[in-house]
Amino acid sequence: MAEVVDVRARVLAANEEAAARLRGRFGADKALVLNLISSPGSGKTTLLEASVRALGGRLRLAGIEGDIATERDADRLRAMGIPAVQILTGGACHLDARQVGKAIDGAGFPAFDVLFIENVGNLICPTSYDLGEDFKVALLSVAEGDDKPFKYPAIFARAEVTVVTKSDLLPHVTFDLDAVRAQVAVLNPGGRMVVTSSKTGEGIGEWCALIEERLAAKRRTAR
Amino acid sequence: MAEVVDVRARVLAANEEAAARLRGRFGADKALVLNLISSPGSGKTTLLEASVRALGGRLRLAGIEGDIATERDADRLRAMGIPAVQILTGGACHLDARQVGKAIDGAGFPAFDVLFIENVGNLICPTSYDLGEDFKVALLSVAEGDDKPFKYPAIFARAEVTVVTKSDLLPHVTFDLDAVRAQVAVLNPGGRMVVTSSKTGEGIGEWCALIEERLAAKRRTAR
Repeated sequence: MAEVVDVRARVLAANEEAAARLRGRFGADKALVLNLISSPGSGKTTLLEASVRALGGRLRLAGIEGDIATERDADRLRAMGIPAVQILTGGACHLDARQVGKAIDGAGFPAFDVLFIENVGNLICPTSYDLGEDFKVALLSVAEGDDKPFKYPAIFARAEVTVVTKSDLLPHVTFDLDAVRAQVAVLNPGGRMVVTSSKTGEGIGEWCALIEERLAAKRRTAR
Repeated sequence: MAEVVDVRARVLAANEEAAARLRGRFGADKALVLNLISSPGSGKTTLLEASVRALGGRLRLAGIEGDIATERDADRLRAMGIPAVQILTGGACHLDARQVGKAIDGAGFPAFDVLFIENVGNLICPTSYDLGEDFKVALLSVAEGDDKPFKYPAIFARAEVTVVTKSDLLPHVTFDLDAVRAQVAVLNPGGRMVVTSSKTGEGIGEWCALIEERLAAKRRTAR
């Protein structure tokens, strides 16, 4: 239906405008913003908890949690002392830039060095919605299987960083890390892949160093 | 945007019509049709492979595989001797009834007793689209975490059957089966939950018996 395509194009254009405004603001604040996208249950919130443990003492962190229902994810971040706003989409399958702007404009949203936006658990729809972030992060748990980048190419092509999660499960599942690395390299030649386990701590240092490098680079260029 | 809501309502209404036609046809054929919905990597295709091993000798099975990209899932079913059509949605996040109708009307689509429709890997969007199925099946892998029914309530409320998959990973992950059972019972008091592992075979007999019971019941009432 041409009408559907038309409305979708207008929705995306309106989102682009809102995202551009957010990006300008994050630039002026010299704050780094990450948009985390994955299937439900890939370990986005658990990775953020591990990131808070590693970076919370050095940087001002904040979180925006997108979900269909429940405040559970924001509660998990708040329990770690991190200010977090829960956006309940009420059925919608992704966050949009206006929702993020509203959350940040809300009373009491703090100043931050790094903002983690945890999108709704969905490997498809959030891909098209720019939230003003510095870069998208795609998460893929080793339990999900090693065929996923080619099956969901858009997000792995657009995410500057792919974080493979739950590497502690590698002995118990069939998952070829090199196959995933090769698929990501085809889809996104400049992309980076980090293999992590929030349980054993594998890769968390590399992941957090990447965040600190990107923040430092943004501060240098934003002067 | 009211316009978005409006277009969405018209799209869903058109889908309902197409689904009603399909349901009439499946009823006349006394064929059972399942619509399998889950996150990417929950093990839909692997459950179908196990189902084919258990039921393939007794029943005429067929598959329709929905994916953004790749023929991989249909290839996996064909490798087991099951006729399967791959629908590539080219970015769309769910199957619709017209696509299913077209696949079934395609040259050489065989007569079947049970048709498995494996939806696009997405726990949200496919929920709203009736495909003329007898019932929806929600899959949830134990690696995804035990908070998912309340976080994605629509699908667990609508699916008559919840299949917990990858139970062989239970010793290696934090997953409270009773908590999931309780959430599903709240969302869907008449629903059924089956715990399976396509690796060890746990629950596959129960799952296949459920399919055979439902097929027999449909044949009785469709006379």
